[in-house]
Amino acid sequence: MTGLGRYYRAMDTPDIPARDRRAALDRVATWIDRYLDDSERFPVLSPVKPGQIAAQIPDRPPEAPEPLPRILDDFERLLLPGITHWNHPGFFAYFATTGSTPGVLAESLMAALNVNAMLWKTSPAATELEQRAVDWLRQMLGLGAGWFGVINDTASVTTMLALAAAREARPELDIRRRGMAGRADLPSLRVYCSEHAHSSVDKAVITLGLGHENCVHVPGDDAFRMRPDRLDAMMAADVEAGRLPLAIVATVGTTSTGSVDPVPAIVDVAARFGAWVHVDASYAGPAAIVPECRETLAGVDRADSLVVNPHKWLFTPQDCSAMFTRRPEVLKRAFSLVPEYLVTGEQDAVVNLMDYGVQLGRRFRALKLWMVIRAFGVSGIADRLRNHMELARRFASWVETEPGWVLAAPRMFSLVCFRHAPPGLSDDAADALNQRILDRVNDSGRAYLSHTKLRGRFVLRLAIGNLRTEERHVAEAWQLLREAAQAG
Amino acid sequence: MTGLGRYYRAMDTPDIPARDRRAALDRVATWIDRYLDDSERFPVLSPVKPGQIAAQIPDRPPEAPEPLPRILDDFERLLLPGITHWNHPGFFAYFATTGSTPGVLAESLMAALNVNAMLWKTSPAATELEQRAVDWLRQMLGLGAGWFGVINDTASVTTMLALAAAREARPELDIRRRGMAGRADLPSLRVYCSEHAHSSVDKAVITLGLGHENCVHVPGDDAFRMRPDRLDAMMAADVEAGRLPLAIVATVGTTSTGSVDPVPAIVDVAARFGAWVHVDASYAGPAAIVPECRETLAGVDRADSLVVNPHKWLFTPQDCSAMFTRRPEVLKRAFSLVPEYLVTGEQDAVVNLMDYGVQLGRRFRALKLWMVIRAFGVSGIADRLRNHMELARRFASWVETEPGWVLAAPRMFSLVCFRHAPPGLSDDAADALNQRILDRVNDSGRAYLSHTKLRGRFVLRLAIGNLRTEERHVAEAWQLLREAAQAG
Repeated sequence: MTGLGRYYRAMDTPDIPARDRRAALDRVATWIDRYLDDSERFPVLSPVKPGQIAAQIPDRPPEAPEPLPRILDDFERLLLPGITHWNHPGFFAYFATTGSTPGVLAESLMAALNVNAMLWKTSPAATELEQRAVDWLRQMLGLGAGWFGVINDTASVTTMLALAAAREARPELDIRRRGMAGRADLPSLRVYCSEHAHSSVDKAVITLGLGHENCVHVPGDDAFRMRPDRLDAMMAADVEAGRLPLAIVATVGTTSTGSVDPVPAIVDVAARFGAWVHVDASYAGPAAIVPECRETLAGVDRADSLVVNPHKWLFTPQDCSAMFTRRPEVLKRAFSLVPEYLVTGEQDAVVNLMDYGVQLGRRFRALKLWMVIRAFGVSGIADRLRNHMELARRFASWVETEPGWVLAAPRMFSLVCFRHAPPGLSDDAADALNQRILDRVNDSGRAYLSHTKLRGRFVLRLAIGNLRTEERHVAEAWQLLREAAQAG
Repeated sequence: MTGLGRYYRAMDTPDIPARDRRAALDRVATWIDRYLDDSERFPVLSPVKPGQIAAQIPDRPPEAPEPLPRILDDFERLLLPGITHWNHPGFFAYFATTGSTPGVLAESLMAALNVNAMLWKTSPAATELEQRAVDWLRQMLGLGAGWFGVINDTASVTTMLALAAAREARPELDIRRRGMAGRADLPSLRVYCSEHAHSSVDKAVITLGLGHENCVHVPGDDAFRMRPDRLDAMMAADVEAGRLPLAIVATVGTTSTGSVDPVPAIVDVAARFGAWVHVDASYAGPAAIVPECRETLAGVDRADSLVVNPHKWLFTPQDCSAMFTRRPEVLKRAFSLVPEYLVTGEQDAVVNLMDYGVQLGRRFRALKLWMVIRAFGVSGIADRLRNHMELARRFASWVETEPGWVLAAPRMFSLVCFRHAPPGLSDDAADALNQRILDRVNDSGRAYLSHTKLRGRFVLRLAIGNLRTEERHVAEAWQLLREAAQAG
């Protein structure tokens, strides 16, 4: 028999032959071990050009099986050059994240078990651990009792589910059954968020059929926080015009600057109009785990729903978005639908995760959250978050004291917005210069930052969130930025 | 320093210390290796009672870090008893799935890289491999050129996105911008599917704000296939009544019986009304990879969108749902939204996956699909699928020839619907008996089946889909079923 011959005898070894499996598992464990130690050997931002990776992948699928060592060789040789390394300590773009060791171990075990936790019965431990792990997170965040939690894939989905619950919280509208089209009896339904809220709010409003023009962007103040006075006035004007204020999305840690909307004032306004309040703390929520930052989530206990993403700033690999609501019965009313083939004997006595969202399939995501919290401990997590904020504070102080550089927004959490603005340069010229600086730094392969626009001006963002980021990485980024600025 | 002392020095070792990491990676690799060989040592359906697992998890999160060996001990000791083993060869419930070796390896690597493929730039290889891998799948399924593919998490989400695209395919309705509420100009928007379609169609219609009563369930024929004559008549009546037929969801492989709606006739009807056709082949689609089953997807090349789930019957761990559309520009128009902080220089020259759905975060799911296809090869995959269908055929033949047992629907693909119906027993009594049989077999820990109702009667389902399922496992299930029936 030729070397590959045995692969063809599919029915003798329906999965991979045992010896090859063991060797591949060991090789992958070794690769991961080294990678988690030394992802710095790669350029953080992939330098490839569009189409360069695809050009190396055959147009047609292989007819015959291929040995795992060859596939793993191709992973390293063909694919890695096209990877932008989110798990690199020099990753400062968007929101920096971490695939930590306990998270990676959990994902491996999850894949082997391959559990679908759609129903309690289809893996009781997955459902019950999820309830426990999110309740641990609730306590860590300093929230009171009475919050129900589930884990979704992304904050985009969680926010959409929350706004669907807001729709269902008005049973008199009868939207679940009758929908919104073709009805003369329904007013326009409005959702409010800050002009600095994440685009996922807009997408949720669009998807739910409310209409993008009904996603009302409330102006922010000088520190990019939603203005509750303007919110109140806009809601009152809408009511005056016959529209119905359905929900408000307050952001704790906006994407551009990390600004925090005044949740206590917002829930007061919401109460006047009977609107649902959803809090998007997907990035900054974990800060509340740090005792001296507990006020990050002030007022949230009076909101209706909340999203915090452990896969952002809580060392958990994608995907892990924790959704909390104080009104789980409304969320369930919005989504529960039990066809006969999903009926189980104990269904009224247990939590069936499928009842709380669009997705039927549910990965065993609780395992990674549980392992991460235990492996680092609440105090260890607080230490690490505090360290990230301290690194950001130092970086902001370097910017502030360097001639020609300015902070473009207050440093918030682990995020710094800044800009090179040498005297005498026009704003437009400075915009172009900062774009060049960004491109040069990113091309270095040593650091990767992203940008935003504030008050119409191009601004650089440095977000700290990877566990392996140390002061030397932040200092190197600062060095690269100044060198790029000098190059003009 | 005490044994745990070093864990507390968080800043010295922000992730897990190197030696502990290596040991844990090795332990997990060894555990997975044994599990993939021998998941049969566990009862397939967890025998725990509601609350039993949660009772063993502390109410409060640990303040101090805990060593990985203790956490992994607890995984084995506390959690495994509460796991229902989807990766067990005796799993025949719902649709049986596989966490195959290449899939598990890929998930481990994905977690370590922890890439977010939201934009091309944020990991070019993830985006470009996804385009290639789904195109490989397209070819394997025998579909023509001109299909664009992306990978989503679940078919529930994919179907929702497809119906959102259907809404957007009517630009004159202006729903993305204006929404549906408070408009006198919009008719009711109708979505049609078979009475045997999956509940995810209903959930998508509800979520999109179309209204559950506008999800029209078209009667099936004697073999549980949507009747195109009834579809045509119902659509015509709706038009007559001033409603707008928006989309039809045809199912290739329904959840209850695996029946296949007549897609060629359905696309003909759709064309008359200008309706979008989405094909839900999430379970049965892969059958088309088997040359002699190519006609499974007959007519689909004239549909607008299609979902096939490699995480169901294609040996790929959760989550991997392939969405295809021949109208990607419509899907993109429904969902693309690019705030400044997500702008990149090459955005008009590349595919940015975030443009094609609700979710911004995107795991590197293409890696597992690519590794699974390569490790088994197209011919090896066809062999394995053919084997599953052959096992189902044998099981169906045993049922048919056994006195007192009947097939409740034609055997389709790897799914058999059947029922114990001893002569002289009333239908109601037989329903109760079959429920008892199901419970007894599932309580055995050797096989796990689920049920459905057909024509109002309780029916058992045996679905084959795990790579490690051999004839002996199916034979054992049959033995257990007959023993349970004899026990009465």
